[in-house]
Amino acid sequence: MRQYARPLAKLISEFSKLPGIGDKMAQRLAFHVLSLEDKEAEALADSILEAKHTMHYCSCCGNLTDKDPCSICNDPSRRNDVICVVESPKDVMAMERVREFDGRYHVLHGVISPMEGVGPEDINLKSLIVRLQGSDVKELIIATNPNIEGEATAMYIARLIRPSGIKVSRIANGIPVGGDLEYADEVTLLKALEGRREI
Amino acid sequence: MRQYARPLAKLISEFSKLPGIGDKMAQRLAFHVLSLEDKEAEALADSILEAKHTMHYCSCCGNLTDKDPCSICNDPSRRNDVICVVESPKDVMAMERVREFDGRYHVLHGVISPMEGVGPEDINLKSLIVRLQGSDVKELIIATNPNIEGEATAMYIARLIRPSGIKVSRIANGIPVGGDLEYADEVTLLKALEGRREI
Repeated sequence: MRQYARPLAKLISEFSKLPGIGDKMAQRLAFHVLSLEDKEAEALADSILEAKHTMHYCSCCGNLTDKDPCSICNDPSRRNDVICVVESPKDVMAMERVREFDGRYHVLHGVISPMEGVGPEDINLKSLIVRLQGSDVKELIIATNPNIEGEATAMYIARLIRPSGIKVSRIANGIPVGGDLEYADEVTLLKALEGRREI
Repeated sequence: MRQYARPLAKLISEFSKLPGIGDKMAQRLAFHVLSLEDKEAEALADSILEAKHTMHYCSCCGNLTDKDPCSICNDPSRRNDVICVVESPKDVMAMERVREFDGRYHVLHGVISPMEGVGPEDINLKSLIVRLQGSDVKELIIATNPNIEGEATAMYIARLIRPSGIKVSRIANGIPVGGDLEYADEVTLLKALEGRREI
């Protein structure tokens, strides 16, 4: 079968390696790139290289940053006595969107998952322990996702940290705001019931 | 609201400019790029620049190519007496996948669409007329899409070319192979009926 000219075929192939991009979409993106102005295509290519070359993990919290320490670790207006532990930099952004939490973060870059061969030593956990030693942290809020691996990771960290006297808490499970009891699964409803609070 | 660090925010913004890529998907792609090896990210950026800088339209048929004339125009084994007129380079690839047509192509890069202010002079039509003059082309197969603009463009070209004595044909409309009469729309069914052939 006749193929696209090599540079176009290569671009389609590169796009199709990206997550969630199938062959048809990769073709569409490649044709779009060809239809761009030179400087627009260069801006796209440059942004890939610049992000790849300048972004790295904060040596303190593990969040993605172009500075070290990151802007959150470096912010003097935030509380030092509470750390929120999350799975990924995306979760930091999700928490920040709430505009409620003004402590620090620690990004695990994964969760403990024996099924996938990911143990405690494979995630960014050791640096959390080091960070807590001699710090004035009073509470650790564990905000891993509420699935099997996230819960197991939360339990593991809680058991590890609790002897040091630091309070370890877990974000609540329950019915999402605007959600519907009728459509909630049994486990979520059970958690919502267990986590009920006096009003 | 806290933003991602500038290089990451810029990459997300560049990805979200691509067609069919929303904010969430752009974020996912950007994080994916950061997770790549340096040389993988560079391969992606390079392929964008290389495709953008080397691909251009064939001066003869208007197809996308990295050579001029393109490999189809330059192929001595193909027939010179029939030209298939299509809307876009993607349509050339679709026709080539059939492995039946061994003539030449002409890519219009659009269709006549008065609603969107696209007239006959805005598509790659003039070069087709020039190409036909003094050529040994005997048939022009118009394979624009079977929608209002595609049909109007086909009619326009047919009226323009017919006086020169060149046969102008149109690809058939009908029920797709494997399709179902029950679910065919009336217009398609009408076209299928009109285009019936003796067996």
